[in-house]
This record gives sequence, structure tokens and C-alpha cells, in this order.
Amino acid sequence: MIRCMRAAIIAVGSELLGADRSDTNSLFLAEVLSRFGVPLVRKVIVGDVLADLESEIGRARADASLVLISGGLGPTRDDLTREAVASALGRRLQREPGIVKELRSKFASFGREMPKVNEKQADVIEGATVLANARGTAPGLRVEAGSEVLFLFPGVPDELHGLVRKYLEPWLAQNSTGQALERRVLRLACIAESELEERLAPLYGEFGAGGVSVLPSPGEVTIRLTKTGTEEERRAWLNPRAERLGELVGEFVFGTREEASLEAEVGRLLLAAGKTVVTAESCTGGGLAERLTAVAGSSGYFLGSVVTYSNRLKERLLGVPKEALETHGAVSSEVAKEMALGVQSRLGGDYGLALTGIAGPGGGTVDKPVGTVFVALARPTGSGAVDVRRLRLPGDRARIRHLTTQWALDMLRREVRSPTA
Amino acid sequence: MIRCMRAAIIAVGSELLGADRSDTNSLFLAEVLSRFGVPLVRKVIVGDVLADLESEIGRARADASLVLISGGLGPTRDDLTREAVASALGRRLQREPGIVKELRSKFASFGREMPKVNEKQADVIEGATVLANARGTAPGLRVEAGSEVLFLFPGVPDELHGLVRKYLEPWLAQNSTGQALERRVLRLACIAESELEERLAPLYGEFGAGGVSVLPSPGEVTIRLTKTGTEEERRAWLNPRAERLGELVGEFVFGTREEASLEAEVGRLLLAAGKTVVTAESCTGGGLAERLTAVAGSSGYFLGSVVTYSNRLKERLLGVPKEALETHGAVSSEVAKEMALGVQSRLGGDYGLALTGIAGPGGGTVDKPVGTVFVALARPTGSGAVDVRRLRLPGDRARIRHLTTQWALDMLRREVRSPTA
Repeated sequence: MIRCMRAAIIAVGSELLGADRSDTNSLFLAEVLSRFGVPLVRKVIVGDVLADLESEIGRARADASLVLISGGLGPTRDDLTREAVASALGRRLQREPGIVKELRSKFASFGREMPKVNEKQADVIEGATVLANARGTAPGLRVEAGSEVLFLFPGVPDELHGLVRKYLEPWLAQNSTGQALERRVLRLACIAESELEERLAPLYGEFGAGGVSVLPSPGEVTIRLTKTGTEEERRAWLNPRAERLGELVGEFVFGTREEASLEAEVGRLLLAAGKTVVTAESCTGGGLAERLTAVAGSSGYFLGSVVTYSNRLKERLLGVPKEALETHGAVSSEVAKEMALGVQSRLGGDYGLALTGIAGPGGGTVDKPVGTVFVALARPTGSGAVDVRRLRLPGDRARIRHLTTQWALDMLRREVRSPTA
Repeated sequence: MIRCMRAAIIAVGSELLGADRSDTNSLFLAEVLSRFGVPLVRKVIVGDVLADLESEIGRARADASLVLISGGLGPTRDDLTREAVASALGRRLQREPGIVKELRSKFASFGREMPKVNEKQADVIEGATVLANARGTAPGLRVEAGSEVLFLFPGVPDELHGLVRKYLEPWLAQNSTGQALERRVLRLACIAESELEERLAPLYGEFGAGGVSVLPSPGEVTIRLTKTGTEEERRAWLNPRAERLGELVGEFVFGTREEASLEAEVGRLLLAAGKTVVTAESCTGGGLAERLTAVAGSSGYFLGSVVTYSNRLKERLLGVPKEALETHGAVSSEVAKEMALGVQSRLGGDYGLALTGIAGPGGGTVDKPVGTVFVALARPTGSGAVDVRRLRLPGDRARIRHLTTQWALDMLRREVRSPTA
């Protein structure tokens, strides 16, 4: 058993350095490593250049005890992985007649004669173990060199997957510490990065920052707690931290799974409360309703929406008084309020959620710059109770529109979860 | 002008070493480099570890004269890019009071006080040029060190894109050799892959497939012609091919730029024709209006939309006759037609575009399986003329909803471009 195993991934292929090819093999390999609790030091993508490849392999061996290489095992002169590894390890390449024979019969089974170039795929690094590839011609290789182990896989995803399942996973099961990595996830909506830092300070103070990762994206933050060890060790570490996080930032949390979505959580809460929602949108142009209905089964709580891009339609479809529009402007607390009440009564939903704002790039003023948004929520009290919130959102048009729907959904989430008395 | 410029890309962030996060910034940067003819030596993803980051920077400088780094410019203790570059270059970090002030006023404009931690984002590497970031708090940096130039960009894609457009591209335009690669792009909507293959066969027959790339994505196909050489060589190669492509697939083309969008093209055509559109949506839940209004200035031709998720609202808001709903069902040619006419007359637009369908996963029947969609377009003749199209779209709920908006937009595009007599 290799303790403290660390891995590095090298993806080989000049085409992967272009603009339109994503290196999906490395994502796949990273997933396998994380499943076996092997930390990944680095992922590199390098072109089909012998010197670059050689220096990359040397470097990977210096930093990692497990080196996973994909690509460069084909038959062309650009395929240099075997040569580079042999040269980096100071070993010879030997052509294996047995493999040449197998390659020939693979070609024969497709009714073709094997081109001479393909013989190169039978070259084996001195001392390496051959990994038979049932899905293609190029076999993989496993090479042990001192305390390091290198796996060479073909770059074709399907072939790589096959060899990983057949050879790498069993090898990891035997050689990794076998200690599963466990992860707890918190997804937070509408919290500023800096407020989060301040709120998390006590956590860091009490436990330290190790094993805690904080990943912000627009209108959202993901916090991950990660711990490797036995089940007992993991629980002893994770539980107190998860509990403390709940105290510190719980009100912002809309989900505890990677795939959680704010709109799904809002839907779950509405269904549980037996309430419906209708929406009225201006600057988001339907984006709020689009998110609400992205959830399968949303017809159980979402009835409909009105997108009023013109003032005339705000009057006609929602009954916003002309005076409100003339006195305060379409982007105002008053108009947002009237939109929420109007859509609630005209479309007949329990909650009426409305928004109006300036998404830009044009239309901003000194008082109401681009990013100014009003979100209004009419509550189902029958009393005409409406909460309005004024926001100043950053970013370009797309960002502002997205953040607007995010804040509106979160306002609804908080209200449905803990209705105002 | 730096001859023989070579670039390396470093993406910083432990989250990028996980199994679920793809590094899209590097793809974007690779595209920019390829546009300016700068070869890319290597892409590396490295975690938030100071020593790893430092050694990566040293290595990049050894192999490349242009080093592009993304990520690690945030305010948290995990954000170490500034420190690592300073240390790798043997330079000091200096906190710039001017930037601190700017950061404070950015926060103030959102009505918030800047947390102490964010001051770190004002740290500037000695001798570096500050790249102002209009879309976020972290400024980028450009550092010259001997014959190498390093660019530091924030990891948030939107912010990185902004800084690349504003600072990197102009810099490349001045400093790369400009041995340009030229690309012509055609963006096609709603063409089946098999039809495309047939239509392209003559092109391949006349010119061969070299330099032609065809990239299908849901509801869309991008064709790229790529040629390197002198301007004359590029033209001689590109012009005849582009012309032939126009003959073969021109009717499907909605744009000739990478960033073209179908909704923007529809908007351009509507503006040019002086017409307006209103929409009525069921299964897409607002997604059609959302796309139409994603375009800045869309208030010039888009007035509003009604999302009727329930039958009751289809009757009440659009005047769809109860009998039509009962006899044919909400997902039917008849109801789509009534929705288009209803929204056209009630919201008062020139074109009325409506859709109704089954996005799934539930709700399908033998006659109308999941993916069945009807799109109807009421034409501005005053004659009640409506075209209806029945579609059977593939994929999951999200895919079906997206494709539905795509077909609806394309139906409008074709009609506005060449109105039915």
C-alpha cells in the first residue's frame, strides 16, 4: 500500500490546445482519483512535442507518485507518448511480436490489412505491463519506476474508460489507502462574498480553513467540506463543522447537494405549503418564469406570467395606474408594488412576484443607474401586503438579468419558508 | 513586435482539479491566441497552493514568452496568484491606496461597506500595469519581466472575457506577428444534420474537406472555414468556398460571426421592417421572451408576452375558446393558432408568436409523445393569417424547451426576412 499517494494527470495532444476541444479525459480521471481519495496535484495539457512531453513526465514524477497519461499512443509520427516515457525513464522500447500479431488479427477481423505504421503500437517500454485494449488498437501500459507508477492510456475516451475500469480502478483499490473521501455541500443564494468571509471567520477561528472550500459564482456560493478517512474519522470531522456552518450561514442555504437549484427549492416549498405563484416581469423579459418552469412538475404551483416590456402593457395587463408610471417612472418601488398586486389579482395566484429594473447597457440615470432593480412580493394575506426590495446589481445586461431572477426567487424562498406574521 | 511568441496558460483553483468543473477560461484564451496566430505550448490547471503555483509560473516563463494566468485574484486566503507571481519574479507587492479607494466606492455604489479582506485586491506587483475590471472587484494585472509578459485575469469567466477584450486583444494586435489565421463563420439554425450533409456534399466534391469544420450543437450548426497565410492567399482560398456555401445552405444562415445570435438577428430584421412582436408561451414558460429580450434595445420591437401555464389562463388572458381546449387539448394546432391570434390582438403587436407543447418528463401520450410542440405565427395582414408548425423535438426537458424557442425564433426570422405574399 502506497501511503500519501498523490497523482498528476497529463493529457497529450496538440488538438487539445486548440479552442474547440475540451479535455474530458482529465475530468473523468479526476473523478476516479477522488473516489479513491487520491489527491490530484495538477492537470496538464501538452502538445505532441517530444521535448515538452519528456520534461512534463519528469516533472510529474517529481511531484506525484501516480502519473496518469492519456493520448499519444496512436500509430502516427505525432504519437510520441511511448517514446517520451521511455526516454524520461532511461529505458528501451521493444517491439513485441505477440502484440504485432494481435494487432494484425484485429485488422483482419475488420477485413483489412494492417498498415505498416501500426506496428509501432506494439512497442513496449522495458519492464512495463501491457494493458489489453478491447475497444481499440493501442494497448495501454503500466510502468513502475522507483516509487512512482505511470499509467499510459489511449486518448479516445471510450478506450480510456475501458482501460481505467479494467486496470486502474482495481489497482487503486489495492494500492490507494482505500479511505473514501466524503463531501458535504452547502449552496447559498444572494450572499456577498465579503459578507460570507465575515460570517465564516468564526468557523475558521474554531476549526481552521483546511478542508473547507468556498466557491462563489454570480448570485451564489458553494461551500464544500471534504474529509478523507474512516467513516468514524469523517463524521467526527464533518459533523461539528456542518452544524457550525448551519448556525453561521443557514438562512442563505437553499440546498445541500451539488445539483440543487434555487428554483427547485422554491417549488418544493410552494408545493409543501399548497400555494401558487404568478409573476410579472419587465427587465428580465420572462427569465423568472423560465426558471420557475424549468422544474418538472412546476404546473403544480406556477400558473402563469405576464411580461410587460412597454408602459402601455403595464397599465393594460396589470392595471398599473398611469399616474404611478408618470410620477415615479416604470423602474420604481411604486410600480413594482402595483405590478405584484396586479398580477396577483388578475392571474389569481397566492403569491404575486414582480420585478422592474434597468438591465442596460442603456437607460441608466444618476438616480437610477444601470443595475437598479425593484423586486416586489405580494403576500397571500388578502390584505394587499407587499414587500419591495431595491437592489443595485453589478455586471452586464445578462448578469443583471440573471441576478434579478436570483434575488426574486430568493425573496420568495425566504417568505414561503418563514411567512411574515 | 515579439517574434516567435509562444504562450502558456495557467488556470488556478483547486476546484478545477475536481471532477465536476471544466476549465472554460483556457478554451476561451486558446481561441484568442489562435486568432492572433500565437502558438500555445501548454495549459496547466493547478490548485490553490503557493509553492505549486510559484513553480508553475517559473516553468511557464522558461517555455513561453506570454503567460496567461486566470483565477486566484479574489479576496480570500485561498487567492494566491498575486503573491505567487510576485514571489516568482522576486518583486514586492504594494497595496495601492487609489485602488482601495475605487474598491470602496464600488461597494458603496451597492450600498455596502467594503470588508477589510477585500483590500487585498488592491495589491499590485511592483512594476505591473493595472487592468481595470468593470465587471467585478478584482483588477487584472500585466507584468513585464525580462522578455516575458504575464497577464493575470480573474477567474470569473464574464470578468475575464471583459479584460481580455479590453487589454489582451489590443496588446496581441500590437505585439503578435500578425501572420494571421483567418476564419469565416456561418451560423445555421434548425437544420437537420443529415440534410446538412447532403447539402454540403457538392462543396466537399468541388474543394475537398480540408479547412472546413462543421460543428453541430442543439438546434444549430456552426461551419468554419480556416486558412493561414498572407492576406492574398487567404482570400483566394476563402472567397470561393464562402460563396459556394451561401448557395448551398444560405437560407439557414442567421449569422456570420462567432458571437451572432438568432434572437439578435430576429431583432435586427424586425427593426429594419419597423414591426413589433408579442409572444404567448406555454411549455417554454417564458424562455422565448427571455431570449428576445436578451438583446439590448429589444424594447424597440418586443412589447410583451403572456405565459399561460394553466388552461384557465389560456382562456382568460388570450381568449382561447374553451371548446378548442376541450376538443383538441392544450397541445394542439388549434390552440396554438388561437394563442397566436389572441396575443396579437390583446397585446397589440404586429406579429403574434405562440407555442404550446409537452416538454416532459411527464405528460406524453401515444398521439402526442414528449417533445411534441406546436408553434404558430400570426402574420400582420389583419386577415387573421396564421402559420402553424408541428414539431417532434428530441432530448430532455431543458433541451426540448430550448429547441422550441429556437424553432419559434427561426420561423419568425424566415417570415420577417421574406414575408409571405
